[in-house]
Amino acid sequence: MESYSLTPIGVVRSPWAAPGQPPHQGAETGSESRIELDPAWTEGLTGVAPGRWLWVLFLFHRAGRARTMIHPRGDASRPLTGLFNTRAPIRPCPIGMTLVRLTAIDGDTLTVRGLEAVEGTPVLDLKPYVPGIDQPWDGA
Amino acid sequence: MESYSLTPIGVVRSPWAAPGQPPHQGAETGSESRIELDPAWTEGLTGVAPGRWLWVLFLFHRAGRARTMIHPRGDASRPLTGLFNTRAPIRPCPIGMTLVRLTAIDGDTLTVRGLEAVEGTPVLDLKPYVPGIDQPWDGA
Repeated sequence: MESYSLTPIGVVRSPWAAPGQPPHQGAETGSESRIELDPAWTEGLTGVAPGRWLWVLFLFHRAGRARTMIHPRGDASRPLTGLFNTRAPIRPCPIGMTLVRLTAIDGDTLTVRGLEAVEGTPVLDLKPYVPGIDQPWDGA
Repeated sequence: MESYSLTPIGVVRSPWAAPGQPPHQGAETGSESRIELDPAWTEGLTGVAPGRWLWVLFLFHRAGRARTMIHPRGDASRPLTGLFNTRAPIRPCPIGMTLVRLTAIDGDTLTVRGLEAVEGTPVLDLKPYVPGIDQPWDGA
């Protein structure tokens, strides 16, 4: 298949230097991280206010080569399952998505709570959380 | 910033030929689409069963050049707001994410309900929906 080139919109500044250090997924941590946005895109934050919930899409830029079968959370005691049955970083397109709470905006810099990405993680996108479309719509 | 190259894992087969035809976001439609996975990744579906909710990450491959300020839903009567305050397709990294219900798997082909992507849309990733991390965790 044809490949596509994406240029990140920003970078994560976080307390975690290496893969394995961040807690798994945001909801389990109250730690704050910063996202430094490319100044070219700062105007795109218009209307985005602290207190809001945002999806952060980012690259697992230090993840290894993708496999089709993995042990959940890298725990060899757990049975192998399909890659797409997990949120593991090791994926063909290594994109992570995490719901975070925006706590502050200062110029090009967003402070967020719940982002588990390592220092230097390339950020691809920010999207508002919209309950009506981001939850199962039949109440399941 | 350094660019990254991503190779899609599959392609959308849908009833919609052109941008503007699909309904906005999946929850508003009960229409079915298919995702044809690259056979190299089919084993990665192990453990993924019909009835489950999945995130589909895909490229808005026919979206125009990104702007920082947009009219929500392309409606010029609505006030301009920041790109990152919307889910518009026109984004610096044109990645869409839609929550869908998996209705069937047949070999390399998934049938899903709620995907609003046009025919030929490149699919980047499939992730399981995990309520504990994919909803605001303070009950907001």
